[in-house]
Amino acid sequence: MSDPIRIAILGASGYTGAELIRLLDTHDRAELAILTADRRAGQTLAAVFPHLASVKAPPLVAIDDVTDWSGVDVVFCCLPHATTQAVIAGLPEHLKIVDLSADFRLADTEEYARWYGGPHKAPELQKTAVYGLTELARPEIAAARLVANPGCYPTGPHLALAPLIESGLIEPDGIIIDAKSGVSGAGRAAKEGLLHGEVSEGIHAYGVASHRHSPEIEQALSKAAGRTVRASFTPHLMPMNRGILCTMYVQAHAGADAATLLAKLAVRYQGEPFVKVLPTGTTPHTRHVRGSNLCLIGAVDDRVPGRVILVSVIDNLVKGAAGQAVQNMNVMFGLPETAGLALQPMFP
Amino acid sequence: MSDPIRIAILGASGYTGAELIRLLDTHDRAELAILTADRRAGQTLAAVFPHLASVKAPPLVAIDDVTDWSGVDVVFCCLPHATTQAVIAGLPEHLKIVDLSADFRLADTEEYARWYGGPHKAPELQKTAVYGLTELARPEIAAARLVANPGCYPTGPHLALAPLIESGLIEPDGIIIDAKSGVSGAGRAAKEGLLHGEVSEGIHAYGVASHRHSPEIEQALSKAAGRTVRASFTPHLMPMNRGILCTMYVQAHAGADAATLLAKLAVRYQGEPFVKVLPTGTTPHTRHVRGSNLCLIGAVDDRVPGRVILVSVIDNLVKGAAGQAVQNMNVMFGLPETAGLALQPMFP
Amino acid sequence: MSDPIRIAILGASGYTGAELIRLLDTHDRAELAILTADRRAGQTLAAVFPHLASVKAPPLVAIDDVTDWSGVDVVFCCLPHATTQAVIAGLPEHLKIVDLSADFRLADTEEYARWYGGPHKAPELQKTAVYGLTELARPEIAAARLVANPGCYPTGPHLALAPLIESGLIEPDGIIIDAKSGVSGAGRAAKEGLLHGEVSEGIHAYGVASHRHSPEIEQALSKAAGRTVRASFTPHLMPMNRGILCTMYVQAHAGADAATLLAKLAVRYQGEPFVKVLPTGTTPHTRHVRGSNLCLIGAVDDRVPGRVILVSVIDNLVKGAAGQAVQNMNVMFGLPETAGLALQPMFP
Amino acid sequence: MSDPIRIAILGASGYTGAELIRLLDTHDRAELAILTADRRAGQTLAAVFPHLASVKAPPLVAIDDVTDWSGVDVVFCCLPHATTQAVIAGLPEHLKIVDLSADFRLADTEEYARWYGGPHKAPELQKTAVYGLTELARPEIAAARLVANPGCYPTGPHLALAPLIESGLIEPDGIIIDAKSGVSGAGRAAKEGLLHGEVSEGIHAYGVASHRHSPEIEQALSKAAGRTVRASFTPHLMPMNRGILCTMYVQAHAGADAATLLAKLAVRYQGEPFVKVLPTGTTPHTRHVRGSNLCLIGAVDDRVPGRVILVSVIDNLVKGAAGQAVQNMNVMFGLPETAGLALQPMFP
Repeated sequence: MSDPIRIAILGASGYTGAELIRLLDTHDRAELAILTADRRAGQTLAAVFPHLASVKAPPLVAIDDVTDWSGVDVVFCCLPHATTQAVIAGLPEHLKIVDLSADFRLADTEEYARWYGGPHKAPELQKTAVYGLTELARPEIAAARLVANPGCYPTGPHLALAPLIESGLIEPDGIIIDAKSGVSGAGRAAKEGLLHGEVSEGIHAYGVASHRHSPEIEQALSKAAGRTVRASFTPHLMPMNRGILCTMYVQAHAGADAATLLAKLAVRYQGEPFVKVLPTGTTPHTRHVRGSNLCLIGAVDDRVPGRVILVSVIDNLVKGAAGQAVQNMNVMFGLPETAGLALQPMFP
Repeated sequence: MSDPIRIAILGASGYTGAELIRLLDTHDRAELAILTADRRAGQTLAAVFPHLASVKAPPLVAIDDVTDWSGVDVVFCCLPHATTQAVIAGLPEHLKIVDLSADFRLADTEEYARWYGGPHKAPELQKTAVYGLTELARPEIAAARLVANPGCYPTGPHLALAPLIESGLIEPDGIIIDAKSGVSGAGRAAKEGLLHGEVSEGIHAYGVASHRHSPEIEQALSKAAGRTVRASFTPHLMPMNRGILCTMYVQAHAGADAATLLAKLAVRYQGEPFVKVLPTGTTPHTRHVRGSNLCLIGAVDDRVPGRVILVSVIDNLVKGAAGQAVQNMNVMFGLPETAGLALQPMFP
Repeated sequence: MSDPIRIAILGASGYTGAELIRLLDTHDRAELAILTADRRAGQTLAAVFPHLASVKAPPLVAIDDVTDWSGVDVVFCCLPHATTQAVIAGLPEHLKIVDLSADFRLADTEEYARWYGGPHKAPELQKTAVYGLTELARPEIAAARLVANPGCYPTGPHLALAPLIESGLIEPDGIIIDAKSGVSGAGRAAKEGLLHGEVSEGIHAYGVASHRHSPEIEQALSKAAGRTVRASFTPHLMPMNRGILCTMYVQAHAGADAATLLAKLAVRYQGEPFVKVLPTGTTPHTRHVRGSNLCLIGAVDDRVPGRVILVSVIDNLVKGAAGQAVQNMNVMFGLPETAGLALQPMFP
Repeated sequence: MSDPIRIAILGASGYTGAELIRLLDTHDRAELAILTADRRAGQTLAAVFPHLASVKAPPLVAIDDVTDWSGVDVVFCCLPHATTQAVIAGLPEHLKIVDLSADFRLADTEEYARWYGGPHKAPELQKTAVYGLTELARPEIAAARLVANPGCYPTGPHLALAPLIESGLIEPDGIIIDAKSGVSGAGRAAKEGLLHGEVSEGIHAYGVASHRHSPEIEQALSKAAGRTVRASFTPHLMPMNRGILCTMYVQAHAGADAATLLAKLAVRYQGEPFVKVLPTGTTPHTRHVRGSNLCLIGAVDDRVPGRVILVSVIDNLVKGAAGQAVQNMNVMFGLPETAGLALQPMFP
């Protein structure tokens, strides 16, 4: 076995941190060097996450108490939005960084300021950050020091739509993305709206036309279109823990239909271990990817002429967060991309 | 107290039958005269639905064993699609009928034949049937002998969209209805796809561009538009028992926005006990209507110019089935429309 | 219609408060006069509980801002444990009070001090409080000014076991009560342990041998036995919102079996509208009582000779809290006991 | 890499079959040679289980169409109870077999006949079968051709109680096992009682004092006690997919308490990779083991003197079925016992 990759996870007491640890436990090059969690500092991982009691891991520490980063090769940053910029700006140069917050996702720092309510605190660093949707930015990720891991909602639509827009098969303007997410995407914070009594046995839309993943989605679609485009994005909160399903309504350009679109995607993602294109007329369940790094994409011709309905599914904690982060780490370190990510979905 | 309305429920062993009984138990004019359920004939209601053990009800009988209808005033027909036509055609003339199947919903029997895989067996009777979305067809329902109770999916969009199309506020063509439903809408039949292990912790689209409620929705929108229109309708199955949320994407005509649309709906439904219009910018949860006959409608201006996102919620077993059926019965018999329907939603 | 009973609900923004309002909305003598909720003061009921938007109710106020109690007949107190004593001690004498907290349930204030971590602040008032399990204390409740509404966990076992102990049919010592509860019993407070992600897809025991409902259960069993008895009580938290099922393991005295025990209970609860005894060998589901004030009790002879397994179910928010409170109010005011409580269970 | 172990799974279209495939996909010696499923014969694994579409696997065949077993080393038999005996009796001698049905679990074939409603069809074969609770029968399993994989319910109590009975620390008679299980233990058959609408938002006991796992549990406890003992066993069906929690009430012999019992278990399971003993006074959640082969055991001193409350948790599809089957295969073939079983639990 080669030398281990020594890993620090900042903000390890949330669901994303736990998921990173679950996946890295199957990664034969990964070694957990530092776990931080300010409110749980001094506790063992087993105390915070009893399901991970068997994992070999150091106790949690406060981030300010980490003074020596020499034993670390890569940092996964799972801190809250807005607090992350300053932390990352202060990390030693030798560290590679995968940031799972939203802080470095928007290339335009003014756009960031509009959506996140304050100026970006590390605009120079932002210029060096690579937006890390692995399948669409492998060379840049391989060369990057700082990777901004994509948001959970944008990942599926980005994978499904960018190649179709780039190839001119669909109209880039006015695409509708109707998204349904499990609750783990909202994190482990104790909020009334996330209680079992409030979430189970129901569904609701939230952040309609105002969710912070909107500019990230539009950034992706605009880049593919070569010009600024707007999209409709409506997230819904559902009574499940894991999974995002996005139903996308697109206008196909003359002559294109669901089969054409899927054929294009099949070529684009041929050989990809994690992105799978379904046969025309079929659509995936979130259950088909739970616990895995997979993204499945299906499409059906609509009754409204020229319209195609695309459906993508991911596990928001894996391909939508920790899994893609590990995938990016693998690319950054030249490792096999499936290392730590070979698990099949768990069903039921 | 006035004379009771004597009621027969055909197909009383399903979820819709149970819900009718739950509601009618609070209706001071209702009396359960006959309950049929072929496979459960001879059993008590308590044996089939232990939660209704306290209800005063006759034992279940096979429908063919009902030979004397003289003690019945109204029939609720909860039989499977396609079997219903013949049954209703054979009922005595003195009976009023609310049919909860799809058999008499489509005015065009050729359209019925296309979607249900066989010719309509009672086309003459079809001509007399009134499509019973109560708020939009009260006079016709009051005069009808046979009311076709609307499907669960069409109800919310019909209430939200018909007045907007009629008034010319929105473009009738190409409307998108992205629907999310609980499992009770699929009934109580033992099917692998409805098992807890298959439904919980996940979501999937089904019947994409091919669901049988599509022609019913388009019939409603076309009637409002005064011409044939097509709509996109994508149902999704969710891990909850009750509730349908429909997210609707519409193009507003020049000058109209979410506030304009909601103002129109507020006027249209002023004084209605069951249809409630929310303040602009807010959207409802299915939890807000669970167990009640309410339909809530909200709207938000989208980021895509000219587009408005409408959201409607109902309890599919109440306003989407049994509740609306009771409401229609009330109209047919000149009773207060809220009789049997005064229950507040149950949360959590 | 007679004069209304004018009602104040203290702590109306929790699940118990909402449930009281849902039930009282069907009570033809109830009128909501005052609703308090310190953190939501100034808000409408609809803002706090959108599902109750149709209820005619005053806005929420802070409890300290209520200076005039002259327009109130009865107070439902839904405040947290320990804070309640002082509040109730300060209420005017003309008010009848149903306290849904634990503060006045334990007759022995030293026992209270042991379990709740501090001395009782209104020991004189405690002496006047009646423990309000309606079916077992009707005359005392009718004469009481202050009723301590029973805890959710004790209610089912108390109803099932007290008559059996009193009649000498079972051994009072060492009874085992294995309880499974939905999450609404823990209230609406934003705690990590009540998040959907923490509660769904799993079960765990908590407060094993140390839950605060233990002394309340033992008080009930001891009173029935005429001497101090100990019981095993193990609560479990389950992924459902409503319902408590208690599986009870008892030793029958010579000659008694499940049938004997059920016969005794059937006689004891003959004519009771809310307590139902099932046929020997059958056991109830929590689904059979959801949303209703029912308590169902079943029993089966065990394989271990002489042991009988009893199962009780209630809806913890109804017979375990708000429903029993309304039932007690009815007794206190000489109203029909089923007023506001005539709803059938809701299933599914 | 050494030669692969070539595997046949009989009855591969159920949940247990899917779970075997998920686990074996991480086993570096496992090769799927034959998958049978009579009703799905001719279909691909991806058609039956879309979440396993990436697994390299042969198409499903009917069991009667398997005529050549020469390419198989071991058979996992996931067929229904009672049909299994004849199938296994007909398999070639060179095959090792792990049977996941109940057919070979009861050593006493008369006991089998009593509980399963008919005579055992392979009594001679029964005599050669080894009951495969791995940690308690390793040498016998290593030498066996036919291993009867334990039932899901007995596994946790067997691991927790057998060492305590053997060492005389607890009274073997009259132990109470109150069990709570997710629905996957009931399989994938389309039954009304397993529908989402029937299972979610509720709990109920079933098979009270008559469940077929009773004799299997008593066989285990009797063997430990050296004489016939009876136990109370009450299973409950819960709204979750995976997991069994057993709450056990035992009488400790003089001087023993929870700490004593746990110390004994800690010694007994020292070094075991899958059985973990918790600190005194703590009890496990089923969430802590979901998806893994772990069994966690905790204990608390009860308020009733001398009584101890033990709690065990497993994932019924892993340590309660497929995981233990793989563990047994590893022992039978002299492989590392954790091969294919190294996955951490998945939470949330």
